[in-house]
Amino acid sequence: MKNLLFVISFDGKMYHGWQSQKNAVTVQDTIKKAFFNITGDKANIIGCSRTDAGVHANMFCFSVKTKSTIPTDRFVMALNGQLPFDIAASKCIEVNESFNARFSCIKKEYVYLIDTGEIRNPFLSGRAYHYPFFIDEKRLNETAKHFLGTHDFSAFCSADTVVLSKIRTIYDIGVKRNGDIVSINICADGFLYNMARIIVGTLIYTENGKIKESEIPQIISSLDRTRAGITVMPQGLYLNKVFYDFEI
Amino acid sequence: MKNLLFVISFDGKMYHGWQSQKNAVTVQDTIKKAFFNITGDKANIIGCSRTDAGVHANMFCFSVKTKSTIPTDRFVMALNGQLPFDIAASKCIEVNESFNARFSCIKKEYVYLIDTGEIRNPFLSGRAYHYPFFIDEKRLNETAKHFLGTHDFSAFCSADTVVLSKIRTIYDIGVKRNGDIVSINICADGFLYNMARIIVGTLIYTENGKIKESEIPQIISSLDRTRAGITVMPQGLYLNKVFYDFEI
Repeated sequence: MKNLLFVISFDGKMYHGWQSQKNAVTVQDTIKKAFFNITGDKANIIGCSRTDAGVHANMFCFSVKTKSTIPTDRFVMALNGQLPFDIAASKCIEVNESFNARFSCIKKEYVYLIDTGEIRNPFLSGRAYHYPFFIDEKRLNETAKHFLGTHDFSAFCSADTVVLSKIRTIYDIGVKRNGDIVSINICADGFLYNMARIIVGTLIYTENGKIKESEIPQIISSLDRTRAGITVMPQGLYLNKVFYDFEI
Repeated sequence: MKNLLFVISFDGKMYHGWQSQKNAVTVQDTIKKAFFNITGDKANIIGCSRTDAGVHANMFCFSVKTKSTIPTDRFVMALNGQLPFDIAASKCIEVNESFNARFSCIKKEYVYLIDTGEIRNPFLSGRAYHYPFFIDEKRLNETAKHFLGTHDFSAFCSADTVVLSKIRTIYDIGVKRNGDIVSINICADGFLYNMARIIVGTLIYTENGKIKESEIPQIISSLDRTRAGITVMPQGLYLNKVFYDFEI
């Protein structure tokens, strides 16, 4: 029995998120089928994260235990031969038995893309949030620093989130511009349900004046979801990097 | 009666090209419907070019004569409100009565995108030709210069093309790289059917050794379609710029 770690990327437009669901096509089910087609294994595919419907991944990891004798270095090509156009594997490595793509993950980075162009761009449909207004990315980059560090992020998760602890650590957060596209990167040890999208929605509220920049620390410490900004649409969100305690 | 010139862009993935067809969805028909919805005019929508199924446009122009009283500066927003996510208007100007988006066009630029990454990129599916091999873009840029100037491009159009003259002038052609993406820009007074795609296919053949760089002048003068390279897939092709004898 080998334990394999795969790196994939996917355009999430056509999927109801990562996690298996009845009556909806998900990335996990699609991979499970492809994996079965090449190995005959109805294997348990363990994803690093549960991405929402419409969310994309520049880098996503899953682990799977298999008896397949396909050499590790041939698995990527074999799997890509069975995957649809909007999912692609780029790497497969053997990992130790105790590795689990979800629980072994130490850090993740999401990036959110905002298209500030006056006219919507047909090539960014489903791939960025069209917000055709001025954003001062340097100011926003400063504002975002309020989120750095370890906090109880109760104000920045979906109200019905049930987890043992809502304390997370944001290691890095930054805002950049490339032409009309403003991108917000957030790197943390973990993300609560909708956390990245609510942080982005709150940052946008500081730009359009609905929230003052100076209020952010109070909103964080209030633990009150109703004080933070909107949950921006999932289509602008990308899982960008996944970190383990070894180089992938 | 006003004569209006619109600038649009579109992701061609879902369309059977520009031109109206029975039993297929085209960009022209989609615009005709949107235009009717806002003006009540079953207007004649004249496109600058007949793009093939799957071809995209970063810039495409059409002209239309209308009795509508919608102010010119409001037309873009009105039209975008009726257009699907993969087509967007960005400009509308009033032009003189004799202007025709097709016949008044003096120059067009196409760009072809080649994804040379080893693994196919889900975000470039339908938007670039996946060719996972080495391309020396500097050498290819030199090779491409053979196409410059005025030639009979019979060897570089679909064999069943019926036009008065197959003589066209290429003003500019160049090859660049941005990461894994190699792009080929071609600017000409006009393009024969499949001409841009066959030029790109021929250039790729000089990279994989099926055609020698030095043979290109002979292939052009042979007027023989069978001597040129393949017609590369339409999904990598973008109408990039359209020129008239005034600034748009």
